[in-house]
Amino acid sequence: MKISILGNNSALPAFGRSPTAQAVSIAGKDLLIDCGEGTQVRMQQYGIKWRNMDHIFISHLHGDHYFGIFGLLNSMSLLGRTTALHLYAPAPLEALIQSVLSIADSNHAFPFHFHALPEGSARLVDTKLFSVDCFPVEHRIQCHGFLVTTKTRTRKLLPAKLTAAGVPKSFFNALINGEDYIDENGTVIPNEQLTTAGPKQKRYAFCADTRYTHSFLEHIQGVDMMYHESTYLSDNETRAAERYHSTAAQAAQLAKDAGAGRLLLGHYSSRYRDVSEFAREAAPIFPAVEATEEGHVYEI
Amino acid sequence: MKISILGNNSALPAFGRSPTAQAVSIAGKDLLIDCGEGTQVRMQQYGIKWRNMDHIFISHLHGDHYFGIFGLLNSMSLLGRTTALHLYAPAPLEALIQSVLSIADSNHAFPFHFHALPEGSARLVDTKLFSVDCFPVEHRIQCHGFLVTTKTRTRKLLPAKLTAAGVPKSFFNALINGEDYIDENGTVIPNEQLTTAGPKQKRYAFCADTRYTHSFLEHIQGVDMMYHESTYLSDNETRAAERYHSTAAQAAQLAKDAGAGRLLLGHYSSRYRDVSEFAREAAPIFPAVEATEEGHVYEI
Repeated sequence: MKISILGNNSALPAFGRSPTAQAVSIAGKDLLIDCGEGTQVRMQQYGIKWRNMDHIFISHLHGDHYFGIFGLLNSMSLLGRTTALHLYAPAPLEALIQSVLSIADSNHAFPFHFHALPEGSARLVDTKLFSVDCFPVEHRIQCHGFLVTTKTRTRKLLPAKLTAAGVPKSFFNALINGEDYIDENGTVIPNEQLTTAGPKQKRYAFCADTRYTHSFLEHIQGVDMMYHESTYLSDNETRAAERYHSTAAQAAQLAKDAGAGRLLLGHYSSRYRDVSEFAREAAPIFPAVEATEEGHVYEI
Repeated sequence: MKISILGNNSALPAFGRSPTAQAVSIAGKDLLIDCGEGTQVRMQQYGIKWRNMDHIFISHLHGDHYFGIFGLLNSMSLLGRTTALHLYAPAPLEALIQSVLSIADSNHAFPFHFHALPEGSARLVDTKLFSVDCFPVEHRIQCHGFLVTTKTRTRKLLPAKLTAAGVPKSFFNALINGEDYIDENGTVIPNEQLTTAGPKQKRYAFCADTRYTHSFLEHIQGVDMMYHESTYLSDNETRAAERYHSTAAQAAQLAKDAGAGRLLLGHYSSRYRDVSEFAREAAPIFPAVEATEEGHVYEI
């Protein structure tokens, strides 16, 4: 799983930093989380192709998280997309997109499926390769975080052993799911002799815009990597609380309490030109932290 | 008058070219014409400050001409704008902007005045420094061009002559407007002895997205400079007509028939990587032509 940062500034573009967007790449598919203004340009720039993108998720309807969706959808139509696209976002975005189309006397050139986010948590997508869940966070307006989980086969087959034991292909799925094999003579061949442990499932949590809270801790417990906003440093902790945002230290505390593997910071306020201080402030609490940079790819 | 090209590609961003936007600068004020996605970033990049911008004009509601307005207005609020802003655009944009605000539980932080464009032509703005008129062009949906005219004093005062003749200040405006001065003794001093000709009025026409037509010729007759779309070269003349767009040669023909001083081309289709051919195709018909480049400033 790879996380490409397409934008990590809060509120507006500043110091060459763009508003929020990131691509989560899993086995040749790219999920887009948030779509600030200009996301389509940065997708071009950083090699994220809309042809590989079937699912887009919008955390909330503050402009810096979705103003790029109109242009991206428009371009997909103009460039000849024909495959279905699923957009998961707060309900009011559907009417807005419909207005933009009808005003232009236009329509999507591809099957478009809008899915309104529920108030609470839910599984949004469930494919053979991955699942995506949403969970509510605490922001000034309705806002969701997203949990992306790669699916892996529980056990990995050992071809040479299968041949030696004469296991028929029809039994492979049962082996992958951990069953023992019983041959024609009734002899039990334990699963561990025919398979090894499958690759570890990977989990990535995007915690969106939120004030510091443990209310969604259960959803991010033990994730391999989490992105948590750090709009401010501790010098603006009061302002952060007032505006339903967090500081780098608070993000670090939550990552620690969640037992996360790594922490990515972002959604920096435009009051900070240099963002290296964000990681320095978080590291004493949670050392496996990185202050994200646009265009960088973070791999799990 | 200076025209700064902030975007000159059609439909979508491609080859480093951005969708339509341009700033017209007059005496320290910047008018914005069209506002494609990412315009606020290119304003930063090319030194166009929203603090000097009180009037924005949107030609029509195809996304490549207005998707940047939401982010620009949002940023003006966040960055503390307090002065009034006037937006002239097709009527449906007002409700769209209102939806974007209400969904975000937000509001403009500054006085915001929306002016719906009429169906026909009209004077939109009339200040001491300039006027702006709109005129209908022929596109797939309602679309307007804009004519920007700098106002100049008709006559320029000659201070030494005024002192010698003892003209009181209260009569200066009358002199500027061409009247003769009659002194206390009833002696007539002809205007030409006290003033010289004022600077020439300058006129710039932005012809928006349109198919090749002479229907708005009267509005652009004799302009100093005109920007006319050239989405295609002559190799795609049929396509241009079908899509209510023009070719470079057609733009040149119209500039010639209008008796324009200079012609700027833009709104290039993404099928052309190199745009130098646009000026080459237009020049035999209208030699004073330039294929605009983003970030370049064209001065009248």
